[in-house]
Amino acid sequence: MNPSAAYAELERRFHRLSAVNRAGAILNWDRSTMMPDGASDDRADQLATLNVVAHEILTAPDMPELMSRAEEGKGGLDSWQAANLREMRHVWTHANALPADLVEARTRAASACEMAWREAKKQANFKILLPTLEKVVEITKRVGAAKAQALGLPFYDALLDEYEPGGRSARIDALFGELKAFLPDLLQRVLARQHAAGQLLELDGPFPVEAQRKLGEQMIRVIGFDFHHGRLDVSAHPFTGGTADDVRITTRYDEHDFARALMGVLHECGHALYELGLPRDWNRQPVGNARGMVLHESQSLLMEMQACRSRSFIAFAAPRMREAFGKRGPAWETDNIHRLYTRVMPGFIRVDADEVTYPLHIMLRYRLERAILEGDLPLAELPGAWNDGMRELLGIVPPNDAMGCLQDIHWPDASWGYFPTYTLGALAAAQLFAAARAAEPGLMDEIAQGNFRPLLTWLRTNVHGKGSLADTDRILIEATGQPLGTQAFKAHLESRYLSA
Amino acid sequence: MNPSAAYAELERRFHRLSAVNRAGAILNWDRSTMMPDGASDDRADQLATLNVVAHEILTAPDMPELMSRAEEGKGGLDSWQAANLREMRHVWTHANALPADLVEARTRAASACEMAWREAKKQANFKILLPTLEKVVEITKRVGAAKAQALGLPFYDALLDEYEPGGRSARIDALFGELKAFLPDLLQRVLARQHAAGQLLELDGPFPVEAQRKLGEQMIRVIGFDFHHGRLDVSAHPFTGGTADDVRITTRYDEHDFARALMGVLHECGHALYELGLPRDWNRQPVGNARGMVLHESQSLLMEMQACRSRSFIAFAAPRMREAFGKRGPAWETDNIHRLYTRVMPGFIRVDADEVTYPLHIMLRYRLERAILEGDLPLAELPGAWNDGMRELLGIVPPNDAMGCLQDIHWPDASWGYFPTYTLGALAAAQLFAAARAAEPGLMDEIAQGNFRPLLTWLRTNVHGKGSLADTDRILIEATGQPLGTQAFKAHLESRYLSA
Repeated sequence: MNPSAAYAELERRFHRLSAVNRAGAILNWDRSTMMPDGASDDRADQLATLNVVAHEILTAPDMPELMSRAEEGKGGLDSWQAANLREMRHVWTHANALPADLVEARTRAASACEMAWREAKKQANFKILLPTLEKVVEITKRVGAAKAQALGLPFYDALLDEYEPGGRSARIDALFGELKAFLPDLLQRVLARQHAAGQLLELDGPFPVEAQRKLGEQMIRVIGFDFHHGRLDVSAHPFTGGTADDVRITTRYDEHDFARALMGVLHECGHALYELGLPRDWNRQPVGNARGMVLHESQSLLMEMQACRSRSFIAFAAPRMREAFGKRGPAWETDNIHRLYTRVMPGFIRVDADEVTYPLHIMLRYRLERAILEGDLPLAELPGAWNDGMRELLGIVPPNDAMGCLQDIHWPDASWGYFPTYTLGALAAAQLFAAARAAEPGLMDEIAQGNFRPLLTWLRTNVHGKGSLADTDRILIEATGQPLGTQAFKAHLESRYLSA
Repeated sequence: MNPSAAYAELERRFHRLSAVNRAGAILNWDRSTMMPDGASDDRADQLATLNVVAHEILTAPDMPELMSRAEEGKGGLDSWQAANLREMRHVWTHANALPADLVEARTRAASACEMAWREAKKQANFKILLPTLEKVVEITKRVGAAKAQALGLPFYDALLDEYEPGGRSARIDALFGELKAFLPDLLQRVLARQHAAGQLLELDGPFPVEAQRKLGEQMIRVIGFDFHHGRLDVSAHPFTGGTADDVRITTRYDEHDFARALMGVLHECGHALYELGLPRDWNRQPVGNARGMVLHESQSLLMEMQACRSRSFIAFAAPRMREAFGKRGPAWETDNIHRLYTRVMPGFIRVDADEVTYPLHIMLRYRLERAILEGDLPLAELPGAWNDGMRELLGIVPPNDAMGCLQDIHWPDASWGYFPTYTLGALAAAQLFAAARAAEPGLMDEIAQGNFRPLLTWLRTNVHGKGSLADTDRILIEATGQPLGTQAFKAHLESRYLSA
């Protein structure tokens, strides 16, 4: 087979892989939103089968030969095809790094550990989790070793690379070091300033679910969510799922607190706009996929934290909130709502954290997961190490492990190497938003009018439309002039929380 | 490979086939209920890929050898395994009867014809349909010829066999002949009797959708629908989809007529109960599937026509209808509602037909589709032949082709051989219901109390729980003492419409 025929055959196979994965994505969404509770075994069987089908496409015996042949003809490919072939190789390498029995062992260990985790969390008892988590750690170490060899990367980087292609721990260490030197002091100053500013007025509920749903829908329409290619539904744990042509975001409503669902929907909408903004014609090939978790998280945080917790957006949203719930009075004025939406307070729970303390939660997890995987921290000592870290970084100690080291599903779920992408995403969000504001000086005024078109156009051009053509740093450099750094994030926090 | 290893390998492959098909079933449901309109190309790509994956499982080069080896060891299989192997052979034979290019040509021709049909129907212009329908007919003839050869069956039977395994046109001719000798005269007597009984009182709407939804949900709960393994939603064309563990029924609501949605839901519920009643442990093997379209339709018609249009059920339902819509007065009395729900009137549209005239619609389609496929009726003469048939069988002539030969999607959709299963199902429904009443003398009294357990238990034992262990006639003989016949259906119509 000549190189161009080999490349064409690869496109055909990766198209099929994409179709199988997209089918699975809709079935996963359905499982969390629509599926009756008695169908979980049935659905698990369907999803496991689709995974096997996908895996077989990637591990077909003639794939190495096809890829080598196609790579021999690289000079004849255009840049889009060359990037696509590079992404194919990356996907293939990850899929083939692990023997089938290790993949299966990981799935089984994660499934058993997740069950134990639910019980351990309910009882706030780490001992219930320990045996299955030991197993997950042991298997994760084997996974990391196998991937390190296949990818030629250090152990932890090989795990990270699955979520953030090109992500490297040496960079993370440097970036987190800068944040560590900055955030604790900033936090104290913000707390003092907020304390001095006096009491906040809480918004008085209840807030009917239907009114919340309508408000959320109205707001994401304003931002640019396209209901011809997406849905908004309810699930126990909010997420963005589906496909780039059919993006499905979910939330959950609390009648006593509408901000949580509203800000959650705006956050997921950021993820959704990234998917919706991927080039239409590319999304059935690897080069058409979103770049990685760092840029994905940057898009949700850019929308939620940078754009929608800004004073400008709250000025636009406040009257619409009052209208949605039929409220008025001092608590419902823009200033008070903006102060509520930018309140900083150290807490135990990561997912409830504000943008100042959130990175501290992540730094703790990053530090601990590396120590566990590298053998420096016996798993039995995790609760103590967690609490020490919370005291050091946030100045508070959780009253029990359910509010401590048992709070997240990621470790039981075998998603080691995932946590740092949250904070790298926050850094990228600040950097991209600053660049967008510099490029479009009227951006915030437009947002205050409910016009997101300038922002969305800039994001489409500089992030969404690039798919996986280049790596994360290249995309950031082209968009902002800099590789990923902490400067814009620090400047953002100082501007929002210490000046004005 | 020894025979038992070959059989075990076949079970593994058919399990995978089932999982792929079940995944496709949920995606099909989603397409009709949840999918945003911009995602149809994306979804078509997913479904086409899953079809290819399923087809490749069935056409794997080693399948003939595996089946032959397994069949050599038939003596060592238990009866369940032997039946499963027989069903595997049947599924394989249908899948392998057609060369891949003919399958693809059929899909493409049906898709083009369906598009033309929508336009032709809108404009009531058969000429718009003719060219693409010619193509569908031509391909259907090739399909029939290929299947006839593979199955060793007459041409039309080979098409019918896909929907109703074991179904034969000689049987249909005989059964339809008996109906033809019976129905037109019965119809005249029923019309005269209903005319003599005087004016009916129409139910006064509007009927809010939410109240209709609640009433439908209440009624199918009464009948035994299990919401832990199913859902009720809205779609443009009502259907029952999903899987046996996750059955999804749909309806559409008309604010001016609640009977349509309610009776539609009860009809689909009959389909759903069949799926839900299939043996839990079998449903990932061919022997665990529903037997065929005749028994499937029998279950929906048994529930809708036999059980839920009975005087007994209406006596139970009427007070609940009054409560659901806050109504009272003479129109809302049981007698009037029952008369409304058993009103007979020749009409142009099959899907709106009552149970007396419905078989006449089917006999017309059966006669015409055979004539077309056998070359006795040029397609251009279809509208005239249709109208002649309507005059002969129902005494009315449609004012245009939209209300005549353009009303159904089946022919454009390439579903030739499907129509007769509707009426065979109606015969089976009457026969099964009569047997259930004979076996459970208190059945109707229980239904009048809203207790469907005796009926459902009988159906579970005699129909649902048998999956595809035996053929349709064997199941009917064991359940009713007779192969499929017209006697019970005729007795039912006489009893409901001419006595009492």
